[in-house]
Amino acid sequence: MSLIVQKYGGSSVADAEGLKRVAKRIVETRKAGHEVVVVVSAMGDTTDELLDLAEQVVPVPSGRELDMLLTAGERISMALLAMAIKSLGIEARSYTGSQAGMITDAQHGSARIVDVTPKRVRDALDSGYVAIVAGFQGFNRGTGDITTLGRGGSDTTAVALAAALDADVCEIYTDVDGIFTADPRVVPAAKKIDRISSEEMLELAASGAKVLYIRAVEYARRHGVTLHVRSSFNNNEGTLVTNPKDGEIVEEPIITGVAADLSEAKITVVGVPDIPGKAAQIFTIVAKTNANIDMIVQNVSTASTGRTDISFTLPKSDAATVITALTAEQEEVGFDSLQHDDQIGKLAVVGAGMRTNAGVTAKLFTALFDAGINIEMISTSEIRISVVTRADTVNEAMRVVHRAFGLDGEIEAVVHGGTGR
Amino acid sequence: MSLIVQKYGGSSVADAEGLKRVAKRIVETRKAGHEVVVVVSAMGDTTDELLDLAEQVVPVPSGRELDMLLTAGERISMALLAMAIKSLGIEARSYTGSQAGMITDAQHGSARIVDVTPKRVRDALDSGYVAIVAGFQGFNRGTGDITTLGRGGSDTTAVALAAALDADVCEIYTDVDGIFTADPRVVPAAKKIDRISSEEMLELAASGAKVLYIRAVEYARRHGVTLHVRSSFNNNEGTLVTNPKDGEIVEEPIITGVAADLSEAKITVVGVPDIPGKAAQIFTIVAKTNANIDMIVQNVSTASTGRTDISFTLPKSDAATVITALTAEQEEVGFDSLQHDDQIGKLAVVGAGMRTNAGVTAKLFTALFDAGINIEMISTSEIRISVVTRADTVNEAMRVVHRAFGLDGEIEAVVHGGTGR
Repeated sequence: MSLIVQKYGGSSVADAEGLKRVAKRIVETRKAGHEVVVVVSAMGDTTDELLDLAEQVVPVPSGRELDMLLTAGERISMALLAMAIKSLGIEARSYTGSQAGMITDAQHGSARIVDVTPKRVRDALDSGYVAIVAGFQGFNRGTGDITTLGRGGSDTTAVALAAALDADVCEIYTDVDGIFTADPRVVPAAKKIDRISSEEMLELAASGAKVLYIRAVEYARRHGVTLHVRSSFNNNEGTLVTNPKDGEIVEEPIITGVAADLSEAKITVVGVPDIPGKAAQIFTIVAKTNANIDMIVQNVSTASTGRTDISFTLPKSDAATVITALTAEQEEVGFDSLQHDDQIGKLAVVGAGMRTNAGVTAKLFTALFDAGINIEMISTSEIRISVVTRADTVNEAMRVVHRAFGLDGEIEAVVHGGTGR
Repeated sequence: MSLIVQKYGGSSVADAEGLKRVAKRIVETRKAGHEVVVVVSAMGDTTDELLDLAEQVVPVPSGRELDMLLTAGERISMALLAMAIKSLGIEARSYTGSQAGMITDAQHGSARIVDVTPKRVRDALDSGYVAIVAGFQGFNRGTGDITTLGRGGSDTTAVALAAALDADVCEIYTDVDGIFTADPRVVPAAKKIDRISSEEMLELAASGAKVLYIRAVEYARRHGVTLHVRSSFNNNEGTLVTNPKDGEIVEEPIITGVAADLSEAKITVVGVPDIPGKAAQIFTIVAKTNANIDMIVQNVSTASTGRTDISFTLPKSDAATVITALTAEQEEVGFDSLQHDDQIGKLAVVGAGMRTNAGVTAKLFTALFDAGINIEMISTSEIRISVVTRADTVNEAMRVVHRAFGLDGEIEAVVHGGTGR
């Protein structure tokens, strides 16, 4: 008998039919003799509808009350799911974040988990029940108030419960078959990855792969939780995200996957005096805007002018604020001008095998050069190489690189693999 | 400075506009220097929509999960209302039934309040906040589960909070101007009652007046809470429901109001052997069905046959179950047959002054006789006379009796008194 945590997103429980389908899967798992804890998101577009309603009442809803409002969403889906399971002959109990012991700090809208005390969930399992827990929500002990965990919060709820209950596996159900070597909508030859380390998964998620949220992967890695990302529309095995221990022998492909990200813009600060402390000055100004800086590149200065250019990428939505902030301090910093470019694409190649294999960079650059794709910025970590190209070449770049590293499968991947089951 | 509990029903907060209008009224009360506790129902048809959703998933939803589901409704309305109040410059905090200390028994769907510990509500008031409390919902300490109070539960929440907080008044907002001497849709000459005793209100509510729920009036009477039933669409004074103490001199009109009820059916058990214990036997069988019996009439037996007829009224929806139960025991009880009549109307005349005034019954029967309306059953309490007539004559009966007792006003009542404010 295993203890399995299953997480179902809003698209899996969008309507009564979806709820019944998910209930059937849960009951099958329970009947196979496993203990089952289910984490569920709000149905379909419920959260967006509640946000719309709030905006009709006030332009900028406040944190505490917005959390109170939004948590109604999972309350609805979890109660209905418990009813559906019960109607199939298996006892089920639903629990709010607070009842399930998801203790958080008091940061409304993006609370961090500080403790998990799932006593009622454990008791429900001991009674032979399926326990349904509301994703996304928590409870602050100090204020006694309801909180929410922010984007991707239900994944985090599932992983945190899996860790606290010492679950054997945390299954993340989605509408695709697992993690792919590249986005199958862009690279038809992409293959499903059977197994990936949490380290690689983190780099892929940070580079634009959207199936899992970084925060949930981080939590799983820190607490040694094994994730199984799979489709709620069929019974195929998905992708296992594991945490190989130091010294454990794992067969690592040189490259595990490639990812692309079109959500960033590039800002170049032109003609920065090449004297110590200028970069620090610039990024202190940027940090005050709370913008999320990704890649940073500084060219060598031209000896004749004593000036250099500093480029960085950031979410497109943060660009205007940062430009305003830098312009206000232009005289103080002493740079010549700002350039803003929102037509960039970022390509990332990720693989733990990269550590012990020379030549990956060379192979990457050669493949891109052969395809006539220009590289504008480069940034690397131990297991990742990212390059910035023109936005309209990044998909072609992804296909070229995918092929160059031998990732192409023999059959084309099935996108949104629904067999209608 | 007074402490005022205000209860707003679903029709007052049906949409964003309604929420804003209600918020404005609350803020005005707060700015007038009062402490304000607001009890709010789910928006418009939310509860019915959630019930529909549940029925799509399972034919008969279970108690615990149905309560979990339905309580999402007030969670939405109270959070939005708190936001709306805050946007008008007054701090507000919303609390679930559990957070507000509404402790109930474990009877899902129709829980009874066993204790009210509104510490967080009191703290919010002490901080100068408006406290918003979810109506209809509670919390069972033993199971740790969420419960609901059943039909009219939000009125009960408001009255229970008013009692626990020792509020000066509990205002029940609705879409009419108060309690009327008769339903203004049927009796255009009906007048708003300025003041009524809780005893009379109980009789009116039990006789079909729908503005207040019996349970809330009972609770208010037992705990000495003054109710003020008024419209959320204007600033008119409504109806005060008071609890005059013994010996207190209150000017009592002989008749306070009349009410009609078309929701009942009549069952007659024909040819019951007129021997001791037969009535007890019949109503023991009926009690096992949980049907809610209202009036009971037994005719004197005909000496020649030694048999009698027993008639009783009950909600139409209970009739089939009761007939099945009685038929199953027909031989055991020894009656001849059953008659079922669902075309009856019940008219009630209520007034505390009846106690000290002879001739009320005579005046009532005369008025009905003059109008050619036949009386089929009669039942009386100390301050009420009820008669059963044909269903299609009950509205005319109400108008006739209203006029006979001098209740007709000089101007016609305004139904759904909205001035659009």
